[in-house]
Amino acid sequence: MQIREADASDWPAVWPFFHTIVAAGETFTYPTDLDEDQGREWWMLPSPNRTVVAVDGSGAVLGTAKMNRNHMGNGSHVASASYMVDPAHAGRGVGRALCAYTLDWARAAGYRTMQFNAVVETNVPAVRLYRSLGFEILGTLPEGFRHPAAGYVGLHVMYRAL
Amino acid sequence: MQIREADASDWPAVWPFFHTIVAAGETFTYPTDLDEDQGREWWMLPSPNRTVVAVDGSGAVLGTAKMNRNHMGNGSHVASASYMVDPAHAGRGVGRALCAYTLDWARAAGYRTMQFNAVVETNVPAVRLYRSLGFEILGTLPEGFRHPAAGYVGLHVMYRAL
Repeated sequence: MQIREADASDWPAVWPFFHTIVAAGETFTYPTDLDEDQGREWWMLPSPNRTVVAVDGSGAVLGTAKMNRNHMGNGSHVASASYMVDPAHAGRGVGRALCAYTLDWARAAGYRTMQFNAVVETNVPAVRLYRSLGFEILGTLPEGFRHPAAGYVGLHVMYRAL
Repeated sequence: MQIREADASDWPAVWPFFHTIVAAGETFTYPTDLDEDQGREWWMLPSPNRTVVAVDGSGAVLGTAKMNRNHMGNGSHVASASYMVDPAHAGRGVGRALCAYTLDWARAAGYRTMQFNAVVETNVPAVRLYRSLGFEILGTLPEGFRHPAAGYVGLHVMYRAL
């Protein structure tokens, strides 16, 4: 697996699993009806923010991450990042590699902290992954997310120092 | 004091104290060098979000609030709001009236929770005000804000159910 900068030509490979994940409405606070153009705008970030893809030896896209400033002004040293792994390639360490990559990026870019603003508490694999990479739960917004199956569940704010 | 919808003609009265507060860089995670046009865009929100002003009997603007959706998609029931009071009119209950107004707005608009994403912990009057109106500190991002005098201080996430 290799992680490299995403460019416009990667979007057609990202969109199918991006769409599946967003439309399911279980893990992201994105409009569940985002169309392909809106999705591209939400995910493919202009510099100095970044979007990358994880690809296998054949060049197939396994997953993607975006990384960006979280707060502005005197909070500009706080970064954020988001990850999507193609469900067909889950359980192969793609999410872990992407998350580690974004931590390295944020550190190199001079950020002091990584903060995730909205981690759905029922997304247990993600919470476990983030914890294993040093993140802590700052707090949990009660009933912050309306899960399509589980109803109102908490939204974690998670962070780690860099 | 009356609170009413802000329109474009109010901005010249808002900008001087907005600019003072933002340029001081002590309480908002806004770029401290926001110019007047950018400030207007950040503060004067299009519908369904809202911006209001608090005015006295002579029509003078004492303070302002904006209120908006905080999360999207399946987090769309979470609102947020921000407040600025002209320092020349501090201590007269303007902030309290504006905060109470936004809670009423959010409730009436069908939101279930109000969440403030970034309350600077050294902004003690604001934290005290929010607590007195039923907000709790969800968590505090360590060193999330670089205060120009106090150095790195915490950023509270605060919330209350509606």
